[in-house]
Amino acid sequence: MPNGAQALMKTLADAGIEVCFSNPGTSEMHFVAALDSEPRMRAVLALFEGVATGAADGYARMADKPAATLLHLGCGLGNGLANLHNARKGKVPIVNIVGDHATYHTQYDAQLQSDIETVARNVSPGFVRTSASTAELCRDTVDAIVAARGYPGQVATLILPADVSWGEGAVACPPPPAPNPAVADDAVVAAVVAAVRSGRKTALLLGGRSLREPDLLAAARIAAHSGVKLLAEVFPTRMQRGAGLPAVERVAYMAEMAGVQLAEIEELILVDAKAPVSFFAYPGKQSYLVPDGCNVQTLATPEQNTTASLEKLAAALGADKAQPQLQPARRPGLPRGKLSAAKVCRAVGQLLPENAILVDEAITSGLMLSLMTAGAPRHDLITLTGGAIGQGLPSATGAAIACPDRPVLALIGDGSSMYTIQALWTMAREQLNVTSIIFNNASYSVLNVELERVGAEEAGPKAKSQLDLRGPVLNFAQLAQGMGVHSVRVTTSEELVKAMEYAFANPGPHLIEAVVPESLNATKRKILPYLLRAMPKLPQPLANALKRKLAP
Amino acid sequence: MPNGAQALMKTLADAGIEVCFSNPGTSEMHFVAALDSEPRMRAVLALFEGVATGAADGYARMADKPAATLLHLGCGLGNGLANLHNARKGKVPIVNIVGDHATYHTQYDAQLQSDIETVARNVSPGFVRTSASTAELCRDTVDAIVAARGYPGQVATLILPADVSWGEGAVACPPPPAPNPAVADDAVVAAVVAAVRSGRKTALLLGGRSLREPDLLAAARIAAHSGVKLLAEVFPTRMQRGAGLPAVERVAYMAEMAGVQLAEIEELILVDAKAPVSFFAYPGKQSYLVPDGCNVQTLATPEQNTTASLEKLAAALGADKAQPQLQPARRPGLPRGKLSAAKVCRAVGQLLPENAILVDEAITSGLMLSLMTAGAPRHDLITLTGGAIGQGLPSATGAAIACPDRPVLALIGDGSSMYTIQALWTMAREQLNVTSIIFNNASYSVLNVELERVGAEEAGPKAKSQLDLRGPVLNFAQLAQGMGVHSVRVTTSEELVKAMEYAFANPGPHLIEAVVPESLNATKRKILPYLLRAMPKLPQPLANALKRKLAP
Repeated sequence: MPNGAQALMKTLADAGIEVCFSNPGTSEMHFVAALDSEPRMRAVLALFEGVATGAADGYARMADKPAATLLHLGCGLGNGLANLHNARKGKVPIVNIVGDHATYHTQYDAQLQSDIETVARNVSPGFVRTSASTAELCRDTVDAIVAARGYPGQVATLILPADVSWGEGAVACPPPPAPNPAVADDAVVAAVVAAVRSGRKTALLLGGRSLREPDLLAAARIAAHSGVKLLAEVFPTRMQRGAGLPAVERVAYMAEMAGVQLAEIEELILVDAKAPVSFFAYPGKQSYLVPDGCNVQTLATPEQNTTASLEKLAAALGADKAQPQLQPARRPGLPRGKLSAAKVCRAVGQLLPENAILVDEAITSGLMLSLMTAGAPRHDLITLTGGAIGQGLPSATGAAIACPDRPVLALIGDGSSMYTIQALWTMAREQLNVTSIIFNNASYSVLNVELERVGAEEAGPKAKSQLDLRGPVLNFAQLAQGMGVHSVRVTTSEELVKAMEYAFANPGPHLIEAVVPESLNATKRKILPYLLRAMPKLPQPLANALKRKLAP
Repeated sequence: MPNGAQALMKTLADAGIEVCFSNPGTSEMHFVAALDSEPRMRAVLALFEGVATGAADGYARMADKPAATLLHLGCGLGNGLANLHNARKGKVPIVNIVGDHATYHTQYDAQLQSDIETVARNVSPGFVRTSASTAELCRDTVDAIVAARGYPGQVATLILPADVSWGEGAVACPPPPAPNPAVADDAVVAAVVAAVRSGRKTALLLGGRSLREPDLLAAARIAAHSGVKLLAEVFPTRMQRGAGLPAVERVAYMAEMAGVQLAEIEELILVDAKAPVSFFAYPGKQSYLVPDGCNVQTLATPEQNTTASLEKLAAALGADKAQPQLQPARRPGLPRGKLSAAKVCRAVGQLLPENAILVDEAITSGLMLSLMTAGAPRHDLITLTGGAIGQGLPSATGAAIACPDRPVLALIGDGSSMYTIQALWTMAREQLNVTSIIFNNASYSVLNVELERVGAEEAGPKAKSQLDLRGPVLNFAQLAQGMGVHSVRVTTSEELVKAMEYAFANPGPHLIEAVVPESLNATKRKILPYLLRAMPKLPQPLANALKRKLAP
């Protein structure tokens, strides 16, 4: 008879969970030892738990099934919490396994003892369980799998005491059935049809699972037939886009701009999405971004089948045979001369390979990315769903493991990258086909913007220093080399293009440090025309207000 | 009238809290802006929250007063959790300030919204409070300060909603009185006196605050007068040691060895310490390490004044005039030839500067450190109180800020260093006088030991790969240079000595990567004689058992 850890491993593999992102300690040693009992299980080591959890998130977004994690007690869970938060907000399935002391050892309050369940509830409100015995372990595991991969997906945390893991006499459990989510019912569809036909300006806000091709095509048929506007949530978990797919405009991060996008909407239909709210609160500004007088209704909740619900709506509207409008192929051309963040985005648009996975955590430096890549070859976009920075490099790691045949391009801000820079080592160890571009502008640029937006404009030198990453300026090329990743530092567009072409031609991990020493005002000046162009129907008073807001 | 953040800043500074270790985000921007309103407050930026919290821990251990942290919502707290755990287990005072969304914004469940209080309870079981209004903020702050710096010290978490921070009309509160802890009462002292005089083998186990000079001298007088044995807890928060101070043997990390140390004790007297338990549980082994039949009593709890309690005991025993035995000055001599972990420890013993602060997170590589530095010039030792690795570099950062006139030497395992490697950047930015030695053995060595100890000896290749940090081997010298820290990679004793001499002669941040590619068996063989020599009174059967256990 296998021990607990061995039976757990078989239960996971039988249910199709075949990757474990790990950073183990002593209490997880039997789990580690059991890896060799299950040939289907691949263990991917991370040097820091935030890399493991972020990789599990990125993996599940691309594999459409959960990976397991393996974390070391409450402290390991703490280190992994920020990226589990991003997964929770993205409704991403993860079977989050946290080792614990042997059940009889907890009474002694040894050094690593802490209240793990309490921490876990922050990211796993729907499923936290400490397995009480070896006999129950596999049933607990199945329950965790069911919870994780249900609708909506979630982080299910299974706490695994060492003695439950090493105990003998466990029996693996058969895999649970696949989930079978419901479709929007007739009354809901009828109400949405009425809204669409009301003559009022209507938008479908797509989020969660509804940003994949089948959903996008159904939504685009509805748009073509009935004139509704299509919007995507501000930070998609995974969005399919590019040439040949319907182009869907994302709600803007800046509440001021989102307000402009939403200003004329009178009927807002939610599909696995929430009504838009501002990312942060600002003194004297509204948090809820839906205009007064706009009706909000839900076609499909995160518990439901979005594809079937959108197709049912299309059929009810008679739109199921309509020709969806598709994004034509279009590249922006290569940038030239001294580098800037905008030019990096242009190069990405020009050079993005076929069928790439694009991970965007470029923050301010990525403002033009959407526009520049709109007509690039079709790709999947992964974004920062929970706002906890440090997600990009780990997410790229997991995405590359889920899709070994696809190139991954990660665009990361300098500040963001340093939360989980250890991901580079895992990329090197596993020889993953990930190209990471770090925008080095030597500042927490977004916070300079935010310092103004919260009305704290009279910042003194100590405050400004908190947003400044100079003294010393980080050298990401050296950091990458120190972790075994091929790297290059570029300061001109020509160098960048050469580095990207080399990286795409030579699969494996690469890091390109793009030095983009721009002032904030310069950034603002550059992005303004693109922002305005991206919203062609902007009413003049709003455009003027936006210009004033964004002017240097 | 100041806003909330400004009054908070003044309240902190009036209470002597003059350093804030920060990694802010948008919700903390008013706190950041308020830094310039309070000239006494120094803000130290970290690139990762675990650096900020670990630095606050190291600072408080050396400054004997709390620093503040500034963290960004639940995710920032999560990232800082592991080092707050170490602080909690070390009873270290920290005023842990966590920004939150504006109170009216939480209802919208925006991207960064999460249950912060729940996470905070893991590390702040004694004090978690969300300040509800600008008017109450400073009173809440004083309550947090009182909680943090009480007896025992603790991590007090104050959650600061953005609108409470930016609200107008706050009034700073006057500083709270200093704590006044009680002394062991007469009955307790009488009971301990009876134990000491019982003729049974007695030991004083010193922990927490009782490992500083006044307590050590009182305990050493008792030892000299009454023949009791002095022991220190396994992982001291801060221990003063070296030439001219009483030498106190620490309880060993390995339960097998601690069992040997404690085997003959019949009366164990606790001073701000817990009865020893094993760090982890192991199949078939005892967790509680106090021998059967040994009486355990407490002279002073963590709530009490240990110095006065030890002095009261000394007086009651008539030991207050006894001559304590003091450690003579003794250096081990310089190492020569190819480098090993043991030789690094020898070099530290030989070269440690006067009045240094020694931060030990060397794990297996530091096994000989205690012995080698026993007769070095007096120094403070900071250790891994909570077992959450990634504490050493941040702790050294904070210690250097608390004691700018003292050299800090941090000894860190390669695995451990990578959890919070971002601390190097803060050392460079603040030009801190910290020399970090990284032991690069390219493995999680301790886990190789632990894999055996948990009885999982038949490890396969996948299991062993989880403990192996080769492929690629990390280059710490490059990592340090990438963060602006002067660094050198050494492979011989002579290179190491030269690098240490250079670092000690040139104050500022330095990193020395010591390449110590030893096999585990070689490590075991080398440490065995030292371990045995460190326990001269070892009964022969136990010594033989230990030899068998540690033999290759």
